Amino acid sequence: MMRTRPLKVALLGCGVVGSEVARIMTTHADDLAARIGAPVELAGVAVRRPSKVREGIDPSLITTDATALVKRGDIDVVVEVIGGIEPARTLITTAFEYGASVVSANKALLAQDGAALHAAAEANDKDLYYEAAVAGAIPLIRPLRESLAGDKVNRVLGIVNGTTNFILDKMDSTGAGYQEALDEATALGYAEADPTADIEGFDAAAKAAILAGIAFHTRVRLDDVYREGMTEVTAADFASAKNMGCTIKLLAICERAEDGASVTARVHPAMIPLTHPLASVRGAYNAVFVESDASGQLMFYGPGAGGSPTASAVLGDLVAVCRNRLSGATGPGESAYAALTVSPMGDVVTRYHISLDVADKPGVLAQVATVFAEHGVSIDTVRQQGKDGEASLVVVTHRASDAALTGTVEALRKLDTVRGVASIMRVEGE
Amino acid sequence: MMRTRPLKVALLGCGVVGSEVARIMTTHADDLAARIGAPVELAGVAVRRPSKVREGIDPSLITTDATALVKRGDIDVVVEVIGGIEPARTLITTAFEYGASVVSANKALLAQDGAALHAAAEANDKDLYYEAAVAGAIPLIRPLRESLAGDKVNRVLGIVNGTTNFILDKMDSTGAGYQEALDEATALGYAEADPTADIEGFDAAAKAAILAGIAFHTRVRLDDVYREGMTEVTAADFASAKNMGCTIKLLAICERAEDGASVTARVHPAMIPLTHPLASVRGAYNAVFVESDASGQLMFYGPGAGGSPTASAVLGDLVAVCRNRLSGATGPGESAYAALTVSPMGDVVTRYHISLDVADKPGVLAQVATVFAEHGVSIDTVRQQGKDGEASLVVVTHRASDAALTGTVEALRKLDTVRGVASIMRVEGE
Repeated sequence: MMRTRPLKVALLGCGVVGSEVARIMTTHADDLAARIGAPVELAGVAVRRPSKVREGIDPSLITTDATALVKRGDIDVVVEVIGGIEPARTLITTAFEYGASVVSANKALLAQDGAALHAAAEANDKDLYYEAAVAGAIPLIRPLRESLAGDKVNRVLGIVNGTTNFILDKMDSTGAGYQEALDEATALGYAEADPTADIEGFDAAAKAAILAGIAFHTRVRLDDVYREGMTEVTAADFASAKNMGCTIKLLAICERAEDGASVTARVHPAMIPLTHPLASVRGAYNAVFVESDASGQLMFYGPGAGGSPTASAVLGDLVAVCRNRLSGATGPGESAYAALTVSPMGDVVTRYHISLDVADKPGVLAQVATVFAEHGVSIDTVRQQGKDGEASLVVVTHRASDAALTGTVEALRKLDTVRGVASIMRVEGE
Repeated sequence: MMRTRPLKVALLGCGVVGSEVARIMTTHADDLAARIGAPVELAGVAVRRPSKVREGIDPSLITTDATALVKRGDIDVVVEVIGGIEPARTLITTAFEYGASVVSANKALLAQDGAALHAAAEANDKDLYYEAAVAGAIPLIRPLRESLAGDKVNRVLGIVNGTTNFILDKMDSTGAGYQEALDEATALGYAEADPTADIEGFDAAAKAAILAGIAFHTRVRLDDVYREGMTEVTAADFASAKNMGCTIKLLAICERAEDGASVTARVHPAMIPLTHPLASVRGAYNAVFVESDASGQLMFYGPGAGGSPTASAVLGDLVAVCRNRLSGATGPGESAYAALTVSPMGDVVTRYHISLDVADKPGVLAQVATVFAEHGVSIDTVRQQGKDGEASLVVVTHRASDAALTGTVEALRKLDTVRGVASIMRVEGE
């Protein structure tokens, strides 16, 4: 039974993702209509540069007045692919007030203001869907908030930024330094002209906030996420990782504490064993591990960015939201009932790989080991390498809190025999 | 806003999966209530052996009369984890008639009678969900029918049977023969006393039918799926695979033909390159690759069987179905609008690895090559190995239709110089 009055879609933004959404809406119109139960019609496209030629889009649909578009009153679904905080935020809340549901790919906005946006959606009895905000085409939001709704998620561990994974993979496979690998990523279009959001971990942190919020049914904001970029990862770190049978990835890690009452969310480079499935995620691909009580370990893998994959996620949401509209229902909204404490980084418990430059004389190892013991950090292995009065000491710890490790490192720096702390890297995925 | 009248759930079957569903419904009652918006109550459990002690289940809920339970009229959701065709089929259709929605884990029934069951659900305006029927805890049905609803799926390629993957992995890693590996799988509980459904590919074929139907929006029945078990895979095949940089997996493959107008579904052992992500899926794990127009290659990985993982999938569906009931809506039903032709195996196009025992004399290779050429099957590589008047010839072809390959092999068998066709194996994942 096909309804003939079309559902009207307003597209905000017509860049790499938006133009692909518009294209697929046109080329796959029949399929979308069959899957939704009614045709969908592109009712308007808000852009910044109206003069740009946009193949396949009726020029009469183009407008620079996004506000007027969302206020038209006859729009069923607003697709927001502008990105950034404003004007996206105001446009989305206005859309709800004027009767539309919203599909967004805006991770920064969701991570910062997810709760307020969900509240606005709920107040107006509308849907807010955002599969495309995390890990591009990989179905992740929906599996977490629907498929695993009957399970208890304990950990989400993932590679959620393709740019940094491309750079780290390049460093690992060719021995290139960070700058060289970044230059190649830029030349190939994997890194933006200003790569800060990627390499400093802001992009991954926004995704971690969204994932943690859904996984733990708890509000987790961007500010709650500990963040460390990957600009200080060196070729020497990769050599150390190799010695341990590991590689280095920039990971987003959302964990429930062992007592179950608190959670943490963090983004930082970490060593993971080569045998871990995340170790073999190459190039700009993304992959996310989800560990839960009943289902054990699940992994979701695919292209984490790009116009087409992101458009696929947007359109999957569009179909769901349109179906909801036809049946007069709404999908799952914010689920924050658990309201767990989001603990600071100091409470995170993990393993550490620490490289020290030390004086090459007897008793140094004993001194260093004493400092670890005094801070309650148990040592797993130590490797010494010395030449010409200089030596390096590589310590791998058992699981310890970040606070204990930080205290240990501060005390180590005060030892006369420790010339410097060459690197500290967390070890995950075991 | 929590509704206080509970939703009533009838559980049909209380074996490995059912008892785990009941357990989680009890231990996670508060979480489920918060996620659904109303409490869920176990209203009855139909079993075959009422005398068995079932820890944590109120004995007054136990009944042997499943029919009376689904006919009670106050049941909101029937969870069917009995398996098999009857009485499961009649119980499910009765449940719809008496006003319940249904969550099922029954792959055999869905593959055989999915269309009729969907029709019964639709006629009564009820939900039929079955995430647990394919690949255990791995969210796959929902991503395919919802997340990728705006995309065009071209291929689904997966390891969907844990028992056979355990056996093949064991043969690959230890050099064991088939029987030895099967014995170990049985001893460890990975294979059932009668392993026919697994090793002959019936289980995987049922899953392939379900996946193909959803992926291509076309009815695909179990009978439409070409099926070849893995009992004839030998240690010699693994040695040949290794020579090619491959391993052997039992794959379920659902493909859209290049012209887009027809699809195929098949289950058989195949060589795949060691570099393919499916090659590293170990033990009893499952993994499914999905290739689509916009999203590219996605992979879903996790435990494919077992009580807890399957229960996780059942409960995810239960939450969705309960939410739908509260909002008075239903989720996506059968989507078969595309109604593509399901082509026979002869139309499948792939590559082949063929081992021939031949006479060790001049001219044999020329004869063999002529037969391939006459049937339009192009040869990629040939390797000859001879000793004591006997020789083996290993031919790897370019892509050719199954019909052309079958014709080639028939003609080869008629050559005087070909003593036997030692093995034919498809090569996939390139």
